[in-house]
This record gives sequence, structure tokens and C-alpha cells, in this order.
Amino acid sequence: MIKVGIVGGTGYTGVELLRILAVHPEVTVSCITSRSEAGMPVADMYPNLRGHFDLAFSEPDADILKACDLVFFATPHGVAMRMVPELMAAGVRVVDLSADFRLKDLDTWAQWYGMAHETPEWAEKAVYGLPEVARAAIAEAQLVANPGCYPTAVQLGFLPLLENGLVNPARLIADAKSGASGAGRQGKIGMLHGEVGESFKAYGASGHRHLPEIRQGLTGAAGADVGVTFVPHLIPMIRGIEATLYAELKDPADFDRLQALFEERFRDEPFVDVMPFGSHPETRSVRGANQCRMALHRQEQSSIVIVSSVIDNLVKGAAGQAVQNMNIMFGFDETLGLQAPALLP
Amino acid sequence: MIKVGIVGGTGYTGVELLRILAVHPEVTVSCITSRSEAGMPVADMYPNLRGHFDLAFSEPDADILKACDLVFFATPHGVAMRMVPELMAAGVRVVDLSADFRLKDLDTWAQWYGMAHETPEWAEKAVYGLPEVARAAIAEAQLVANPGCYPTAVQLGFLPLLENGLVNPARLIADAKSGASGAGRQGKIGMLHGEVGESFKAYGASGHRHLPEIRQGLTGAAGADVGVTFVPHLIPMIRGIEATLYAELKDPADFDRLQALFEERFRDEPFVDVMPFGSHPETRSVRGANQCRMALHRQEQSSIVIVSSVIDNLVKGAAGQAVQNMNIMFGFDETLGLQAPALLP
Amino acid sequence: MIKVGIVGGTGYTGVELLRILAVHPEVTVSCITSRSEAGMPVADMYPNLRGHFDLAFSEPDADILKACDLVFFATPHGVAMRMVPELMAAGVRVVDLSADFRLKDLDTWAQWYGMAHETPEWAEKAVYGLPEVARAAIAEAQLVANPGCYPTAVQLGFLPLLENGLVNPARLIADAKSGASGAGRQGKIGMLHGEVGESFKAYGASGHRHLPEIRQGLTGAAGADVGVTFVPHLIPMIRGIEATLYAELKDPADFDRLQALFEERFRDEPFVDVMPFGSHPETRSVRGANQCRMALHRQEQSSIVIVSSVIDNLVKGAAGQAVQNMNIMFGFDETLGLQAPALLP
Amino acid sequence: MIKVGIVGGTGYTGVELLRILAVHPEVTVSCITSRSEAGMPVADMYPNLRGHFDLAFSEPDADILKACDLVFFATPHGVAMRMVPELMAAGVRVVDLSADFRLKDLDTWAQWYGMAHETPEWAEKAVYGLPEVARAAIAEAQLVANPGCYPTAVQLGFLPLLENGLVNPARLIADAKSGASGAGRQGKIGMLHGEVGESFKAYGASGHRHLPEIRQGLTGAAGADVGVTFVPHLIPMIRGIEATLYAELKDPADFDRLQALFEERFRDEPFVDVMPFGSHPETRSVRGANQCRMALHRQEQSSIVIVSSVIDNLVKGAAGQAVQNMNIMFGFDETLGLQAPALLP
Repeated sequence: MIKVGIVGGTGYTGVELLRILAVHPEVTVSCITSRSEAGMPVADMYPNLRGHFDLAFSEPDADILKACDLVFFATPHGVAMRMVPELMAAGVRVVDLSADFRLKDLDTWAQWYGMAHETPEWAEKAVYGLPEVARAAIAEAQLVANPGCYPTAVQLGFLPLLENGLVNPARLIADAKSGASGAGRQGKIGMLHGEVGESFKAYGASGHRHLPEIRQGLTGAAGADVGVTFVPHLIPMIRGIEATLYAELKDPADFDRLQALFEERFRDEPFVDVMPFGSHPETRSVRGANQCRMALHRQEQSSIVIVSSVIDNLVKGAAGQAVQNMNIMFGFDETLGLQAPALLP
Repeated sequence: MIKVGIVGGTGYTGVELLRILAVHPEVTVSCITSRSEAGMPVADMYPNLRGHFDLAFSEPDADILKACDLVFFATPHGVAMRMVPELMAAGVRVVDLSADFRLKDLDTWAQWYGMAHETPEWAEKAVYGLPEVARAAIAEAQLVANPGCYPTAVQLGFLPLLENGLVNPARLIADAKSGASGAGRQGKIGMLHGEVGESFKAYGASGHRHLPEIRQGLTGAAGADVGVTFVPHLIPMIRGIEATLYAELKDPADFDRLQALFEERFRDEPFVDVMPFGSHPETRSVRGANQCRMALHRQEQSSIVIVSSVIDNLVKGAAGQAVQNMNIMFGFDETLGLQAPALLP
Repeated sequence: MIKVGIVGGTGYTGVELLRILAVHPEVTVSCITSRSEAGMPVADMYPNLRGHFDLAFSEPDADILKACDLVFFATPHGVAMRMVPELMAAGVRVVDLSADFRLKDLDTWAQWYGMAHETPEWAEKAVYGLPEVARAAIAEAQLVANPGCYPTAVQLGFLPLLENGLVNPARLIADAKSGASGAGRQGKIGMLHGEVGESFKAYGASGHRHLPEIRQGLTGAAGADVGVTFVPHLIPMIRGIEATLYAELKDPADFDRLQALFEERFRDEPFVDVMPFGSHPETRSVRGANQCRMALHRQEQSSIVIVSSVIDNLVKGAAGQAVQNMNIMFGFDETLGLQAPALLP
Repeated sequence: MIKVGIVGGTGYTGVELLRILAVHPEVTVSCITSRSEAGMPVADMYPNLRGHFDLAFSEPDADILKACDLVFFATPHGVAMRMVPELMAAGVRVVDLSADFRLKDLDTWAQWYGMAHETPEWAEKAVYGLPEVARAAIAEAQLVANPGCYPTAVQLGFLPLLENGLVNPARLIADAKSGASGAGRQGKIGMLHGEVGESFKAYGASGHRHLPEIRQGLTGAAGADVGVTFVPHLIPMIRGIEATLYAELKDPADFDRLQALFEERFRDEPFVDVMPFGSHPETRSVRGANQCRMALHRQEQSSIVIVSSVIDNLVKGAAGQAVQNMNIMFGFDETLGLQAPALLP
């Protein structure tokens, strides 16, 4: 059993970590912090956890955190950045679910997050925690930057195309859609049920923070600069991301081997499921599960490859992937605590 | 490991049984039948089960079913009634999720279900499977009638009041609301998203099939005839039932001891959670979980006790309770396969 | 054409007033105030009004308001109370959509709204604006207190029973359910889509501000004290209220004449529709429309009358009823601007 | 006043026509046909129309239809095709909301709709009823093919780019999303609330019937063949389409004049609203209204133009556009009956 701490546990990724860890056989949660809710029992805020955790939210306490084997950060950006050095020095391992360590180019980071990065040395050392790309490095890492939700769905869908150099890297389009839980649990008018319900819209269409993260990942896969257009949209539902990806095959004849290529690429991945050619993955098929499902499409004799990729933004897009990373880091079976099927319907 | 068969697996309770059994350590699902979909892999219809089951739907086959230790019926009414005798004779145990064996008064059954009961001897022998009332009998039973969804939420909320004779049994009101999955997975126009979404209505307000089942259970608890008014409503969501119950305390002074009484009544029940007085249970706090949560309320100096009781209609109201019954019947830990917290948000 | 002002226009009732008044042939909206959004064009906040209004939100200006023929208050409680005297003195007529003038008992008002009433003389003079009860007084009134949403649905459904003394007035139950827009447009965590969506719960079950307003209205109808239990619930949708009402007939034989009695009571009411006995009114059948639809039910030989009553909380429960009151006050056809059918589906 | 008939009125476009025509000052609906529901009062199926129409559904009767000034077809494909010649011969004008007369290439039509076209002469004469493109021809037409919902949103958004030859016509992408009402009102399991709710998916990604219609329209606008990839998605809501369009500017310097170009193109269009550059149109801003709202976006220095275009699929995407066409055909003010703002929230 390892001892785990969670910093910033009042948001949706915090409760999702607890939901998953409640049935994880190798983990004890020793603290969950929240400045604003210190003292409140976790189960009072999240009654689904009644009977599962006796824990109350506590003020962040460096000594308690340093006694953990692993600390998850489920905080707004700018928090982990400042707390990580002390934990690193104490030998604690960290999975940061915020954006603090995802980008290697810190000028870009500063531009999108509106502040200078304060611990560039750790930004450099952090491993970007997409297991399907960096499993070995994650296993050795002390600090893992857990990928963003959109970047997970988009990168996984493009990977086999870019790694094999099959498509024009300059003209990638990712039209992505997310449920409302992606915006977190803060009292914003724009995220009220009365505003989000029964409506659909694009947002951040002129530029979104996940764009540089996606570009960085795709550039890595392509081994060359990529041009990617990324438009997120808000779906009137709670959980789930669907990304429809468009890329132009350099040689349309390659269409014949794409399905096999995708299946081969993810054959040993426990959490990526390539459906039969022409399938339509539904977000509900991954609701609550640490899964990415995807399928390929072609329209008539077009040279455009279409990939539809779905995840649960709170699981494979956040807390589930964080636990997957933890499993890798501590040598547990990678699927431990993550085996239950999605909740459908 | 026991071998389990599921008859009629294409509906929502069928897939829910599979979802739960997928992580049950003592069960192997050996067959799941469907006349209409025979041959189709289960995971083609329910992609959340991809990677969990290799099974395909099959024609019902008496020999295969008779080789099971337990058979679940997730069929429309009238099916289990006819197939049960052969399974009983073969020594197979059965949990019937349909309404065939719930009512002891077969004239009432015939009136509400529009056909004569064909196996009255088994209707008499069947144990009504509400574990909080009949655990010992369930453990011994060969045939368990799994309770309806509304009756589960309503009975659990009224039980402590009636068992202790605290309220006027002639004037009980149960105003209940359910998500759309309660209507099953059939192509009815009235259950289209375009009809159900963004709207709310009562239905069956002049009489619903669950009324006699509720009355039978409450009469048992009260040890006397009860008068109960039951109005179900349709909520524009998928899973969840909330029942708001109204009863008149014979002696308003009893209000002071109600909370303790409820807590005591359910103290040892793993799947009933009495929240603090004045709480408001949310259906999402039990989504996907085999839980009933309830709370008590009083308005000013009124003599009316208000109980709000929530369940997931597909879990504690159907498949979860069926697995709970199975656990009891086979001497497994009652919570096996049913421990995961609800999916919130 | 009359000149109309709206105070506090950024909430859902404010935009709903504008939506309705946009097609009202006898009204010009001369100002809409908002301290927080002064200067912002109304159509920037509510793009559905692009092309309909050139207006921007403005600071409240007494001179401009006093130049209006009618001022609507769509403010939190406590605001209209203070501004009304100056408008009254100027001869301006007011329809207050807030709770400030709804209760005649100001101790009760103070208890539920957490402040002392500052203009008791106007609380006394204000006419409670339920046209089906007080049409003549509304026509003459300078100050109309527009009823609350729940109280509208509940009172209309109980009226014929109480006015005719047919039911036991001590034991009325109103189980009511509302869409999320009833909570207004403020950044409360509890009203986020992630909190409200796909869930259902009771709230205010131990006491809600609309309870004394309901009791006042029903007492008036009964001509005697009433005992009413009122439990509101939150539906995961935007617009609509359904109230299921339970009352005990003194003489069950009266069931035979109830339908005729209800139809007769509302025969000349343009905005109350009594459906055939045993119907189930849907909230979507009144979405966007100034309608109350209701239907009666009886279960077997019970003495309990069940009434299901639906309204759109923002229309007949707020802005629509306010415009209906305006029409009455200014001698317009009562249905002017309110004739369009509900938006279904 | 003109006399109007509706053939096939039980679906969502049928009730939507009635909702709009209920307040149209120049129209009397003289019949609404349905073979399956003949005899049923329209308001029994659609209670929002209680008090608005006394009409019952009737068997289609050629004499009654021929006595109409205009007949709307709201039928599945294949019906209007057969009935139109008789109406044409009788001098009746027709707006066909089905797909029968939308495509000029009848081989393509046969391929996508699975039957041979039976009245090719009328397919040739029919005017494709997108008023923003063909207003003059619509005014003169006897037979108008009302555009599909997706094609309306997609064409309007691409028009200014293609008409002015600003983008590469070979590489257009339309990622479109629709509410569930677009699938009509038929008892399909896949459209149940339990299937559609809280989930999102692409469908028809390998090819959808609206693709050839979109291609035909865009080819017309470009004056040259276009290559377009079109992927529709299903949103868990009832009404609304959002299409995010991607096109590559031939000369990125043209970005500077795009906004002015779009505004100019639609300046005189009553039902197309170009929002400020960088806006995010919401489907709710057009709910129930005959509007298309759109906005332009650019990401960093990309050469990709992004257009987000929204309509209500039942209004500007079906019944509203049909009434707009009727207004044009009969010389009424084009906005008659279509002026009310959208229902928001």
C-alpha cells in the first residue's frame, strides 16, 4: 500500500480521483487539501463517497504531503509549480493534473497562462504523462505532467498517422467537443445549467490553451513541425469528449492499410480501443472508464482520413490517466483500479 | 465461481447485469439470451463491454440454462412465469427481475398484467427479494422475485414508520420520479429524446402497476391494510428515482426520535444510507451504485413526516439488487461486486 | 403605445420580459437597468435579442423611470420595496416580479426574507396579481405583486377545490418540481450544469419561501386556515414547473362532478386549460407560453383528488403573468403579446 | 388569407409548421393529413396547440389539397415526388420539406435515397429554396424544394467565401452537430432518451444524404467543383445545429476584409446575422427562431478561415424556411409570422 495525498480536492478531478482510488487495492489516501473547505468532511461535499472515506479536507501541510509516496495536484495552474520543488527535494513523486508542467516551451506557457513559470528546471525534467507515448519514462519519473483532456483525445487519434508520416502535417484539423465538467466546479454564470443546457456552441475558436499542448505532442509524433487547427465546443452534458480529426493522406492508397496500422499501434494498450472501420464511438461508451475509443472513416474517394476519438474527460482525460500513471510509476498492474466497464446507459 | 445465465439480455437491466458482473470475482456469465439478437456479440450492442465479454446473444437453450447455478430473468412479464418450472425442477436458482413473481394475490396480478398467472405454485413459493426485509428467506430461496424500482425506493423509505406503527397507515402518499431508463429499451415514440428531453410530467397517475406491489409491501410492514396514493413522474434524465413520501405521525412528539429510529433500522444495512435530518439526497449520489439514500424532513410544526429516498433504478432498483440477492443466496459477501462509489458528477 | 421600464434586467425574468415585449404591439421599452452591466447592449448579453432591441443596460435613473407608464421590477427582494414609493408618488404603475409585496403578513415576510419590510403601507395596498382571482383589482391597481412561480401553479390547481369547500383544508400536499431557470442567473456552484444535469433532488423540503405565499393564497380561497405541505424539487431542465397536488375530498361522491367544476371555473380564463380527466400535462406543452395546464386524477376508489398542474416558470410563473397583468392594468386585450403557442418539441 | 394544406403532419416539422402558422396573419390551414392518425385532433397529439387549432388529421384527399393555394409536404422521401404532378396540374403551389426535389442529379438522388426518381421533369423545374441565393426564382416558382437542415447551415456559412473565390474549393470541411429532433418522430431505439441523453457521437461519418446536397449548393456558389468533407454529429439536446466550417484562404491577406465581406453579403437578409469577429454563436440564440447566426475566427497566423454557423434545425432548417419561402412566393412581407425572438434560456 502506498500513501497518497491530493492537493486541491474540491473540484471535479479531485472527487474523481477519490472515486477511483476508493476501490484501488494498493492505495491509501492520507490527505486531501482545500484551503477554502478545510475541515469539511469530503463526503459532505460529495455524498457518493459516504461510507468510502472518513477524510476531511485539510489545509495543505508540507509535512503531511512529504510523508506521502505520491501527491496528485488537482489545482488551478500556478499552484503545483510553486509547491513541487519542496516535494521533489523530499523524494515524493508527483502527478500534476494541472497545466504547470505540460509545455516545454516556457515562453509559450507564459503567454497562454498569463504568468511566468517559476520552476523551469522542473518543467524541463517533468515527463509528459501520455502512457501510450512515454510509458518507460513515466515509470522512472519523479514528476509527471498529466496531459490535458482535449490533448489526450486528439493526440491518440493522430498518433499512428503522424508517427508513420502518412499525412500532410501542415494541415491537421481537430474539431473537439466536451461536456461541461471540463470547465471545473466554479461558480461561473456561463456554466450554469440554464446557460449550458439545451445549447451547443464553439468556444475558444480563435485560440485555446490546449492548442500549444496539442501542437507540442503532435510535433513530437511527427518529428517535424505541424500545423493544427483546434476548435473546442461545449456539449450540453456532463462527461465526455469527442474529437473528430481530419488529415490529408499523402498517398490515398494508404487507406487500405490504415485500419491494420491503428490496430497494430494500440494492440498492447490496455486503454485504447480501435473499433472496426466505419464505427461511431459514443462518449457514453467510455463514461466513467479510463478508455479512449476511436474509429476511422473515409468519404467516397476522398484523401481525407477522418478519426473519431472519444474519452471521458474526467477519467482518461484527467483522474483515470493520473492513476494509470501512478500504476506505472509504482510498478503496479497498469489497469489496477481501472478495470470497471463504462456506465452505459 | 458460479455459472450464471441471463435470459433477455438486450434491455437496460441486461446490460447493467453484465456491467456489474464484469467485475464480480465469483461469477462467470455462461450465456445471455435474446431471440431477436441471437448471434450478435454483446459488445457490438453495448460497446462499453468491449474487452470485458466475448459472449454473443444466443437463443434460449434449456440445457445451457439448466447447467447454470443461477439464472437471471431480465424479460418482459409473462416469460419467466413459463420458464421457471423447468429450471426449478433442474435445481437451478433464479432471480427474476420481471414482475412475474412479485405479487402474492394473483387476481391482482392478472388485473394489472393482463394475463392469467400460469404457475401459481411458484408465485406462492417465490421470495420477494428486498434484502432489508427478507434476508434470511432470500438466503434459502430457490426463486427470488426481484422488487420493482419504484417499490424499492418507496418501501425502504416508509419501512421504519410502518414497522413501528408511528403513522396513520390509511393516508400514505408517495410522489415518485424516475429517469427514462425505467421504461426500458424499446422503440416507443413517447420515450424518444425529442419527447422526454427538457420536459417533465406525471404518468400513470390514475394507477400504475407498481401500486399493488407497493401496497403489498407496506401492508406487510404495517401488519395491517394501508391506503397509499402513488404517482410516478418522468424526469428528463437517464438513471435515478427520487420518491418523496408523506405520512401523518399519530403523535407529533415522535418527531424527536425519528432520525435515531431510521438510523437504527438501517445501521447494519450495507446499501441503505440514512443522511442527517434535513438533507436532500440527490439521485446522482447513487448513480451506478447499489445504494438507497434517504433523509427526513419536517415543515414547521406539522405532523407530516417527509422522507426523500433516492436509488438508481437500474442498480438498487433492478440489476444491483439482483446481484445483492445472488450474493445472499450463494453465501458470498453481500457487497461483492457492488462496492464502487456512485459516478458523480 | 405605453412606455415601459425594466429595473434589474440581467436575470432570466428580465430577458423573458424583453422576449415577450419584443412582439407586443402596444409597448415601447424605454429603459432597462442594471448596475453591474451598465453600458452593455442588451443584445450582447442576450444574442436572441439581436435585431430586436437597440437598448443598452443603464444605471437606474429615477427621472427616466418616472417618465414611464409602467415599471417592471425583476430584481432580488429588497430592491422594489425601496424604490416603489418614489414611483408611486410620480403616478407610475408598477408590476413587481420580486417577492417584496406578495405577503400581507410582514412578520412572516421578514422571517423568510431576512430583513424588515421598509414600506408596509405599500405592502398593504399592493394587489396580489393572480388574474384568475383578482382581475378587477388588478385593473385598478397602481402596484401589482406578481405571484411567485410555484405559488401560481399550486394555487391555480387547488382553487376550485377550496373555493367550493370540497376538500379537507388541513391536509393539502403540493409536491412541486421546477427547472433550473427558477434559481435565476447567478454564479452559484449548486446551479452549474455539472451539478444539476442528470440528477434530481428535493430542496427546501423543511421550508421554502413560497410556502407562506401559497398558504396565504389558499387561505384566501378557502376562507379559512389551511394546512399545506409544500416540497419543491429541482429538475435537470431549464424551464417548467409541474405541481402534483393531493387533497382529500370530504365526500368522495363529489368526484363525479369535479371535472365539470374545474372546467366551469376556468372556462373564461384565456391562460388556464383544464385537460380531459386522466390526462398528464407535460411542461413542454407550455414552454415559452403564458399557460397553465392541469388535469385531474383518481386512483381506484380513493378519496384523494390528484391534480397535476404545469406552467413555464418564466412565463405564467413570472414575465408572462407580469405582461398579462400589464394588459389588464392598461385595458389592452388580456392576451396581447401572449398568443403564440408553446415551443414543442 | 391563403388556404394552406400540410401533407404528413405528425412529425416534428409538421407540428412546427402549425406552431408558426398559428400566428401567421395571412394563412388559414385547411387540412393536415396523416394516414396513420386520421381522425385524431391535432391538439391531442400536440397539446401546445390546444386552443389554437380545431383541426384533426385527415386522410390525404386530392380534392381538398387541390383547393389549397399552397401545400407543404412534411413527408418521408418518395411521397411528394408522386403527389406533386397532380397538384401542379391543378395550379397549386408546393413547398416540399422532404428531399424529393433537392438534387438536380437524379442518379445521385437515386443512389442516396434508394429508389428511382419518378417525376424527373419536376425535379428539373423545382427551385431550390434557399432565399439567400434564389429569392427571385422562389417568388416565381410553383414548386420549391426546401433545403435540408445541415445544408442550410453549411451553405450559408461558406457562401461568401466561395462566391468570391477566396478559398481553395477542393478542401472544405464541415463538422456539423445537430439536436435529436433532426431524426424525426419515429420509434427508433437509437433515438430514445436513454440512448441519446448524456452522450455525443459522430454518425454518417462515411457518408450522409446531405453531403450531395451540400456539394451541389457549394458547387453552385463556387462556379466550380468543390471537394467537401461533411461529418454530422448527434448532440444530446432537442433543437439546434452548429456547423464549424474550415476553409483555406488562397491569400491570407484576405483575412482583413472577411468580416466586412460577410456583413455586406448578408446586410439585407432578414434571417442571417453576422456576429462580430471572434464571437461564438450559441444554438439557443436561434431556438424557435428563423435565424442563422454566424461568426468568423482565425487562429494565430493560420490561413484557415473558421466559420461557426448556427440554426434551429426545425425552423431555419425546415418549417421556418418553408414559411419564409411561402411569404416570398405569395408576396407577403418575408418576415411575416417569423418575427418573434428565439427562446433563451
